[in-house]
Amino acid sequence: MNKIGTYEFIAEPFHCDFSGRMFFGHLGNQMLNAADFHSTDRGFGMKYLMTINRSWVLSRLAIEMEEMPTQYERFTIETWVESAMRFFTSRNFCVSDGNGRVYGYGRSIWAMIDTVTRQPTDIYSIDNGAINNWIVTDKPCPIEKGGRVKMSENVELVKTIEVNYNDIDINGHVNSVKYIEHVLDLWDIDWYREHHLKRFEIAYVAEAHQSDLLNFYLEQTAENEYCVRLVKAEILTGNQVEVCRCKLLFTQ
Amino acid sequence: MNKIGTYEFIAEPFHCDFSGRMFFGHLGNQMLNAADFHSTDRGFGMKYLMTINRSWVLSRLAIEMEEMPTQYERFTIETWVESAMRFFTSRNFCVSDGNGRVYGYGRSIWAMIDTVTRQPTDIYSIDNGAINNWIVTDKPCPIEKGGRVKMSENVELVKTIEVNYNDIDINGHVNSVKYIEHVLDLWDIDWYREHHLKRFEIAYVAEAHQSDLLNFYLEQTAENEYCVRLVKAEILTGNQVEVCRCKLLFTQ
Repeated sequence: MNKIGTYEFIAEPFHCDFSGRMFFGHLGNQMLNAADFHSTDRGFGMKYLMTINRSWVLSRLAIEMEEMPTQYERFTIETWVESAMRFFTSRNFCVSDGNGRVYGYGRSIWAMIDTVTRQPTDIYSIDNGAINNWIVTDKPCPIEKGGRVKMSENVELVKTIEVNYNDIDINGHVNSVKYIEHVLDLWDIDWYREHHLKRFEIAYVAEAHQSDLLNFYLEQTAENEYCVRLVKAEILTGNQVEVCRCKLLFTQ
Repeated sequence: MNKIGTYEFIAEPFHCDFSGRMFFGHLGNQMLNAADFHSTDRGFGMKYLMTINRSWVLSRLAIEMEEMPTQYERFTIETWVESAMRFFTSRNFCVSDGNGRVYGYGRSIWAMIDTVTRQPTDIYSIDNGAINNWIVTDKPCPIEKGGRVKMSENVELVKTIEVNYNDIDINGHVNSVKYIEHVLDLWDIDWYREHHLKRFEIAYVAEAHQSDLLNFYLEQTAENEYCVRLVKAEILTGNQVEVCRCKLLFTQ
């Protein structure tokens, strides 16, 4: 079996925005599907991990696109494991038309947790470190790695929303892709008419649950560069806990 | 070509709720995809209609499920045209495992509009009434047709949300499926732990746009039966206009 997994998708009409370009959130979802197909086919997918009380947890995701697939276009996501360590593995993505025209790339970092204790566990413990058989070092992914998203205290609370039923996945917390959608909803269509989102980067810190309030803190860090910190206010305790940080780069 | 179109889908993990069952909204989206595949293959799909300034507009949708596909399950949607008149056509759906086990059914009513004038146009004008070649009268769809959703004045305003970037599709207005999601978000996970949504029915009245405020009015009309009226408050004029009505039937 090839170390690189290749999966075909279609830019479904209702997964495209007002301009006919695919929403970043839906593209992110298809990347996560590709990751799941790839790892399942190679013996370390979510469905198997569930049976041994393990789960992959997405720690970071960066997506950088030169252009977006448009309505009804077929596109291909290639995905491969770039490296694996005891507690983290990095997985890359290439989005193309399947004929050499590249739309963009993705980079992700994953941890593996014990679903009972919620603690990180040793990735090499799965099938005697079998993940090492799948590492690809010679396929380029020419976008920057996600770094620490630095924000000052000079942030503005721009929105508060409540976590709803449709935000929550089978893990009982807000699905990784929903954060992307909620963050992109901080800007309106008039903004997106003038600006293309080139890069979206997210670092997950804690999990948000049903009924949590999510506070969105925004800071402009450069021209066309914005950082967003999501903080949950837990409904029962009132605790304020950072949930994730995002960095967005727009082009005009 | 068979008059009935048959399409395979998978219940993607992030399209499933906390219980591992597919979200109603995502199932609705796949029904709309199946409708689009079916009509495209037979010469009257959206992509072709766009070239002649025509578009299908969903007028009503009713989905009634005995059970829902669960995470990673492959399922089949069959769809066919039950009847066609000058200004409306009815299209049905059957959701099954592809091997005779039926999960549920859907019924939908569509109009065709001129995308320039936004007025209804004659469905029979497309390819000399070719749609009549595709009508299936002998395939059962044993769920009730959607009727007029009757609500009293005894309704309660339970929520107001703003229409965001991710709600809007290429038509420039709120995507049909997003209403389903927003309505289902009126209930929380504790409710869904105790209740299964058996039937969801929606009648579309007007289109909502970016920045409109959506007011949700709720009325309990019987045991486990709820009706919801969505009214948009247009941001520029302050006009209050009914957008759609829904009827939900839960089981315990």
